[in-house]
Amino acid sequence: MDEQGRARRPGGRSARVRAAVHQAVTDLVSERGYGNFTIGEVAARAGVADTSLYRRWGNLQALLSDVLLTRLNAQAPMPDTGSLAGDLRTYAGIVAREVTGPDGLALVRLAIALSGEGQQGIQARDELLADRTRQLQAMLDRARDRGENPPDALEVLDHLLAPIYMRVLFDAGPLTPDYLDGLVDRLLA
Amino acid sequence: MDEQGRARRPGGRSARVRAAVHQAVTDLVSERGYGNFTIGEVAARAGVADTSLYRRWGNLQALLSDVLLTRLNAQAPMPDTGSLAGDLRTYAGIVAREVTGPDGLALVRLAIALSGEGQQGIQARDELLADRTRQLQAMLDRARDRGENPPDALEVLDHLLAPIYMRVLFDAGPLTPDYLDGLVDRLLA
Repeated sequence: MDEQGRARRPGGRSARVRAAVHQAVTDLVSERGYGNFTIGEVAARAGVADTSLYRRWGNLQALLSDVLLTRLNAQAPMPDTGSLAGDLRTYAGIVAREVTGPDGLALVRLAIALSGEGQQGIQARDELLADRTRQLQAMLDRARDRGENPPDALEVLDHLLAPIYMRVLFDAGPLTPDYLDGLVDRLLA
Repeated sequence: MDEQGRARRPGGRSARVRAAVHQAVTDLVSERGYGNFTIGEVAARAGVADTSLYRRWGNLQALLSDVLLTRLNAQAPMPDTGSLAGDLRTYAGIVAREVTGPDGLALVRLAIALSGEGQQGIQARDELLADRTRQLQAMLDRARDRGENPPDALEVLDHLLAPIYMRVLFDAGPLTPDYLDGLVDRLLA
């Protein structure tokens, strides 16, 4: 795209730059792991001047936080199947697909790495947790309204999300449908 | 220490250098997060020439793997209290103290980050998991020999270690003795 094109469609270009930069970050995290690339390398991969990245995000960490929250917020909506067991089984399947997908593990690693990176990283992590908890709470509230007896959101984190993340991060065992259903049964027992 | 001192006690010096370098790595991971320091900065912090670090470890990642496995292998021995519930409660307390201690979270983050860092990182992570699983299996085997009906090691990872790590990594809730005992009760129910 030439300079005139850029000048004519600033919103369109801005959105395209953002998408290219986000994809470049996700690719670099996947290929090299967190911490093994610079903002200049992100710029080169995205085909953007690094000055634009500094102007827009300020630093690599702010860019990483932005990527993380955007990707995680773009996830599939929470299921509403009419029963808590159905919702949790569907949700477990969504999370398992997410973390075993091409970007999923890189994003989980990034979330964990960010929490060790000062106030901005901690804030990104806290927003992520608050967001997940809010979505879960809505599901659990619907179950209570139907007269079911749901666990609290922290129990779902402890016994559904934590084992899924841990198995993927440590390659400790497969996330089969039977395994996921077993986690839900155990949680609701 | 002067050059003569070094020449006279190579083993002693070697062990001291290793300890200083390991401490420097742990400190830098705590202070800056994984990936935000170089082998030169480790050398400066440890008061050692960076050429010695390259000669001994080859690269930063090999050094990080060495630190991780050494620290994790130096942990308290597995408890042997005479009952599985007692062993698991004591073990949960040890792990909780470990991950909430000054270096603990940095080491967990490092383990997770390493698994995204190529073959050597994956190997370090796999050795860590194998080591933990072996220790746990010995505890579970003793319980079976006593006529108890233990869960398998992967269930202990899923429902005892995973929630502890996840709560610390995401600052999701306190690791009180009641909470830890509740995880054990739930695991054995």
